[in-house]
Amino acid sequence: MPHSLARPLEPGATIGILGGGQLGRMLSLAAARLGFKTHIYSGEANACAFQTAHMRTNAAYEDTRALESFAKSVAAVTFEFENIPDAALSTLGAHVRVAPTVRSLAVAQDRLAERNFLAELGIATAPFRAIAADADVEAAFGAIGAPAVFKTCRLGYDGKGQKRVAKIEDVRAAFAGFGRAPAILEPSVDFAFEASVVAARGQDGAFAAYDSPENLHGEHILRRSSVPSRLTPAQSSDAAGIAKKIADALAHVGVLCVEFFVTKEGRLLVNEIAPRVHNSGHWTLDACLVSQFEQHIRAIAGWPLAQTSRHSDAVMENIIGEEVNEWLALASKPCGLHLYGKGEARPGRKMGHLTRLYPLGSLANK
Amino acid sequence: MPHSLARPLEPGATIGILGGGQLGRMLSLAAARLGFKTHIYSGEANACAFQTAHMRTNAAYEDTRALESFAKSVAAVTFEFENIPDAALSTLGAHVRVAPTVRSLAVAQDRLAERNFLAELGIATAPFRAIAADADVEAAFGAIGAPAVFKTCRLGYDGKGQKRVAKIEDVRAAFAGFGRAPAILEPSVDFAFEASVVAARGQDGAFAAYDSPENLHGEHILRRSSVPSRLTPAQSSDAAGIAKKIADALAHVGVLCVEFFVTKEGRLLVNEIAPRVHNSGHWTLDACLVSQFEQHIRAIAGWPLAQTSRHSDAVMENIIGEEVNEWLALASKPCGLHLYGKGEARPGRKMGHLTRLYPLGSLANK
Repeated sequence: MPHSLARPLEPGATIGILGGGQLGRMLSLAAARLGFKTHIYSGEANACAFQTAHMRTNAAYEDTRALESFAKSVAAVTFEFENIPDAALSTLGAHVRVAPTVRSLAVAQDRLAERNFLAELGIATAPFRAIAADADVEAAFGAIGAPAVFKTCRLGYDGKGQKRVAKIEDVRAAFAGFGRAPAILEPSVDFAFEASVVAARGQDGAFAAYDSPENLHGEHILRRSSVPSRLTPAQSSDAAGIAKKIADALAHVGVLCVEFFVTKEGRLLVNEIAPRVHNSGHWTLDACLVSQFEQHIRAIAGWPLAQTSRHSDAVMENIIGEEVNEWLALASKPCGLHLYGKGEARPGRKMGHLTRLYPLGSLANK
Repeated sequence: MPHSLARPLEPGATIGILGGGQLGRMLSLAAARLGFKTHIYSGEANACAFQTAHMRTNAAYEDTRALESFAKSVAAVTFEFENIPDAALSTLGAHVRVAPTVRSLAVAQDRLAERNFLAELGIATAPFRAIAADADVEAAFGAIGAPAVFKTCRLGYDGKGQKRVAKIEDVRAAFAGFGRAPAILEPSVDFAFEASVVAARGQDGAFAAYDSPENLHGEHILRRSSVPSRLTPAQSSDAAGIAKKIADALAHVGVLCVEFFVTKEGRLLVNEIAPRVHNSGHWTLDACLVSQFEQHIRAIAGWPLAQTSRHSDAVMENIIGEEVNEWLALASKPCGLHLYGKGEARPGRKMGHLTRLYPLGSLANK
């Protein structure tokens, strides 16, 4: 990449962000703290990140002219989500530094590519079988057994494109139901708990991980992240090592998140990689001097990474759908309240989050 | 005031902010965290707060049409500085809730009004004499003596409109030099240190003060604020009580700051009132769950005030003028770095600040 070891961006520069959801919004707020301007590019007319950005472009990711004009208005481009067409990144990359690169995106956009990439690195995941055609179903189900989870390879997040299956007929129905898109089948992992590593890799290869949160999901959506987690010091160190291995192999620049299942036997199985800031790192806004959002801006701007230490223990909870209607009661609680400025409180929509802080060490060994 | 006990503003509402400097910028970022949009009104074309706001108006405070159109676009108006013409506030107040009110402004805009207001409340200040005409100089200097400080009554901040005087000729020259504007003369207070109280009063009269920082000035500009200060618990309690008395007497809504001289005998003398967020409260961004900026937004939005406890000890330092050119070195230090997005690094201009955190209690009794 011609732009990959460019000089640090000077304060006052404009950073372009693809995607206008809450992650783009919080990236924009973090960039402002460092003196940067932001330009948000989103296909949604009411993108909530438009509210906090200096410049806004409302256009499709297929609009080459809009992308070119966006690229020319900014000193660097990053993104808040991984489902960006490769062509859009190529168009942008011809004009401006883009970080992370298409390589990080490609692995995270496709579950099969992700699993193969992890296998090549010798990183453990749950066993899986690919399903690309009806003919694959029988062998896959035979190898994995029940209960299992069917997952489409692309465009899955917050449980979209996933289905729990108990019988071979369920697998056939899921494959047909998701339009015969390429998928994988994996066993329903009987884990003790879930955890993640949110970490950053700088332009110079420096690596810094935040303490691992323990994550609780409900209906496939993250409900709560707590730090510290129940990971032992050895497991924490292993998890951070895995994240570093992944980041290095991708030559990743920016924040990334690696989600783990922790089995009852204490094994760490990678579930998913997100090449971006992540919901399970939102607690860093309130419990660390420099949040994951600022850390990402620092990385893609070619700035030194910040220390990732916590000053407090923390529990972050998402505010989902109509729960946001309780904003006045939430504002009365002793917590850090973050609302995303989204209009409609649709079911399952992330409308905000809150973080409760506790003195350092007080939540340990819970 | 017809608007004074209005219902809490709902998230998604737009808050108007008069003034586009770093205080307006940080208010705008804090409002965004709670899901509010902001509309910045500033006379400066390149106001740094424009970069983080949803809407921007670049117009003079005398432009009635621009003020009316601004008022109609927002659900409430607040301000980042006190030198706003009364007429502008009246124009706005006819259309929309304005907080704090003209009463808080009037007292803070004029040193003589401020001293008289404090005297009526029985709150100690340094002795002073008013100078409104050349004929007042002799009596004033006779009463106050040397060394003294000459201060114009209006438009003074960061040392503007102030002059140290040693002889009666200096007083005459200062009075003439500042265009014979009304002024006061006070003794140069031989203080042990300076401290302040940053506190908020809610629409419902609730009051919450942050821990008092100890403040160090250089060339009339704040250089450093540290918490905890050297105030004894009794002094801290007295200082917060004075701030509450002032806030209640003004029926203030929002954050206000009271600056104190702490004499070598341990007396607290009020030096100045700022009816707004204040530089000596910037450390709350990094050492508290809810900063002074969010607290101000909560107060003027009619929301409950947040707890003001600290999770850490803190030292805040301003980045002034050309010091900002060292941004890359500053970004490498273990601190919370805040840059304001201002273009030109003029001497004495506040370009940013940084906060270092220490475990709670570790800076006490220094």
